[in-house]
Amino acid sequence: MCMNMIVLFTRCIQLPGRHEGFQNLTKVSDALHTFLDAIGKPRIRLEFVSIDQSLGRILGADIIADRFIPPTDRAVMDGYAVRSSEVHNAAEGNPVVLRIVGESKIGEVFRLNVQPGQAVAVATGSSIPSGADAVVMDERTKLLSTNEVAILTPSAPGQHISRRGEDVSRGAVVLIRGRRIRAQDMGVLKALGLVRVRVVRKPRVAVFSTGNELTDMLQRDRPNKIVDINRLVLSEMIWERGGIPVDLGLVRDDEEEIMAALRKGLRSREAVVATAGSSVGEKDLVPACINKLGKPGMLVHGIAMRPAMPTGLAVVNGKPILSLPGFPVSAIFGFRVFGRPLIARLLGSEVIDDPVVKAVLREKISNSPGFRAFVRVALRRTPDGLIAEPLRVQRSSVLMSMVAANGIIVVPEDVAAIEAGQVVEVDVIGEISY
Amino acid sequence: MCMNMIVLFTRCIQLPGRHEGFQNLTKVSDALHTFLDAIGKPRIRLEFVSIDQSLGRILGADIIADRFIPPTDRAVMDGYAVRSSEVHNAAEGNPVVLRIVGESKIGEVFRLNVQPGQAVAVATGSSIPSGADAVVMDERTKLLSTNEVAILTPSAPGQHISRRGEDVSRGAVVLIRGRRIRAQDMGVLKALGLVRVRVVRKPRVAVFSTGNELTDMLQRDRPNKIVDINRLVLSEMIWERGGIPVDLGLVRDDEEEIMAALRKGLRSREAVVATAGSSVGEKDLVPACINKLGKPGMLVHGIAMRPAMPTGLAVVNGKPILSLPGFPVSAIFGFRVFGRPLIARLLGSEVIDDPVVKAVLREKISNSPGFRAFVRVALRRTPDGLIAEPLRVQRSSVLMSMVAANGIIVVPEDVAAIEAGQVVEVDVIGEISY
Repeated sequence: MCMNMIVLFTRCIQLPGRHEGFQNLTKVSDALHTFLDAIGKPRIRLEFVSIDQSLGRILGADIIADRFIPPTDRAVMDGYAVRSSEVHNAAEGNPVVLRIVGESKIGEVFRLNVQPGQAVAVATGSSIPSGADAVVMDERTKLLSTNEVAILTPSAPGQHISRRGEDVSRGAVVLIRGRRIRAQDMGVLKALGLVRVRVVRKPRVAVFSTGNELTDMLQRDRPNKIVDINRLVLSEMIWERGGIPVDLGLVRDDEEEIMAALRKGLRSREAVVATAGSSVGEKDLVPACINKLGKPGMLVHGIAMRPAMPTGLAVVNGKPILSLPGFPVSAIFGFRVFGRPLIARLLGSEVIDDPVVKAVLREKISNSPGFRAFVRVALRRTPDGLIAEPLRVQRSSVLMSMVAANGIIVVPEDVAAIEAGQVVEVDVIGEISY
Repeated sequence: MCMNMIVLFTRCIQLPGRHEGFQNLTKVSDALHTFLDAIGKPRIRLEFVSIDQSLGRILGADIIADRFIPPTDRAVMDGYAVRSSEVHNAAEGNPVVLRIVGESKIGEVFRLNVQPGQAVAVATGSSIPSGADAVVMDERTKLLSTNEVAILTPSAPGQHISRRGEDVSRGAVVLIRGRRIRAQDMGVLKALGLVRVRVVRKPRVAVFSTGNELTDMLQRDRPNKIVDINRLVLSEMIWERGGIPVDLGLVRDDEEEIMAALRKGLRSREAVVATAGSSVGEKDLVPACINKLGKPGMLVHGIAMRPAMPTGLAVVNGKPILSLPGFPVSAIFGFRVFGRPLIARLLGSEVIDDPVVKAVLREKISNSPGFRAFVRVALRRTPDGLIAEPLRVQRSSVLMSMVAANGIIVVPEDVAAIEAGQVVEVDVIGEISY
């Protein structure tokens, strides 16, 4: 989203002319709604993993504490557990002398009751003996003998004590289902004595690329073959989002082969991502194959976005299929816009957006009316703040535009241009340096 | 950093009074500089990994292209390769008829030269035959017979053509050493025909916890033992930052045991993180052990920050040691502030900051003069924008304050308070919901 932009019109209804063979294009937001509505709420499968394997996983069930943390009142300072009422007048000039009747050791249960005139030595983390209700820290006391201590400061009830259940109360809902588990969350799971935790199973997403021209490894005698990078890049993007990519390999521009790959993906995986062959040309067989495979088939074909216009969204027998364009940049944007929400839906979680920064635009950006443009920029820190420089080549055939970019400006459909010097919001997709 | 804040004084020189036994405290920025200066620039070790294992790794050497991508001029549309000078007047009402002399197939080398009056069929991705200098898209042509096509639109030189080397030019520096490899970067590595890539070896960081009271698993007969969660949490934080945590286990409050653990860590690992025993009490043996171990030993002990004040920073025989407090919240903040830059230094990379958002503060925050405070907040979206609500309990003994928090407000040393209603910057550490 951009600020201070030139608004051309507020709703895009019609797109002038045909677009590379598409009769009409669907708006990004409409396309995504249609797709997610058709997917519905897929059944979330759960599995147990050990706590130390749970980082980044989606919690499958609420965690309810079955104990108090800490289990007893505890000292948070080294010092002496006292009855606060006895020392409320204590001061450097008015020491209150107490008899040390023992030491409450960390990790052990102290059995004695603190009587009037008595104190018990405590260390950070040790239990507060019954009778005592405050801790005076070492530095505010003077040890007179092995069993006598002078208290040199007043103390209030509860001072320097961490109460039983202060951290976690028995019965409390500690973590809610659907949350992405962080390091500190693992800590509380372990503190509760858990060994395993129920998490959402990672959805397996099948990936294949179509195209007779593709190879996985250049051969000297076939210099004009094209190395398929989409399966690799998309697999990593699936992985980053919490899915498990399943590589179905390269598929030729052949209806039978494409049908077979789609069937294989749909049979045992939660979703399928196909790249190339997604447009309306002679060799764009994927959409037709999807429609032959089952209902409802293609839901959206051709989206008012740049790059990734020839993207198709489909559902067959309840399973989502993403038909992405073959140009790597298009495939990446198609996945960013539709694949990320798809995987979040399969995980029952929210989409994690990229961090957003504000930057000053260095060069004018133009947009085709009705399209949502994703403009790759180089973000740089300067003494005057962040600047965003649109990369010269924005063609979807140029992968280096994604490699050189560390930011993306999303230009909405109703914005025809953003002038140089405007402040824009930029999605951060890489490190920013000076 | 906060905006619109009450500035108390601009430089903190002295801290009033003693702080839990520390005679003086070092400012966070000074402590970090001292620590990183003493570490210097450790030798970066490299290793080869296969491309598909390189996500998130730090590139160990510049990548220079040994080929052009694309290797030849290529069509970016399905259509006909033509000599543009012949069709510059073409129009619907003025068709230019050309003879189709062949088809340039994707992935193959087309040998014929396009002569005047000729055209060659091309598909997206196929090579442009010599002689031709533009592509007319299918939709702007009319096929008259199997070997005759009418061109219905003018064409300019280079139109619908992706030039040889347009994406990557031979000899170009494609990726620079030190960059964190992303999915699209893996794509370009693969496109260049690479199979393996040289990356920085992950630094191995030894972790141990000290404390007689600690256990890894609660036992029914020792209900007052404390489950050690620091090793787990810190290990995950090391992992998230690109290091390999090495668990040295639990160590008793015993000088010999602590010395042995430190020696073991220093012998074969790049850094050591010890938790608990980091303060100045009777049982805080870690700092003294570090000093016995070698030079320069403890560099900083006691830092003007909350939480994590009793943090120690040390270097022994060129290897960094982080002595973190035992309370999990303190250990986490000590690691955030000093462990993250430490690992970045070991990787030869930059620290990745958390995303930052602006939010309206819901309740006043107070800060002790001279301290840098890390205030845990709950960030929430509201119809009026983001709000940040400081969590009620900020004690470092309360891990739930880290579990409930999805944001952190860093209050600088010269700010005594931030009033409710002010706009603050918040580091985002978890998902934000409504």
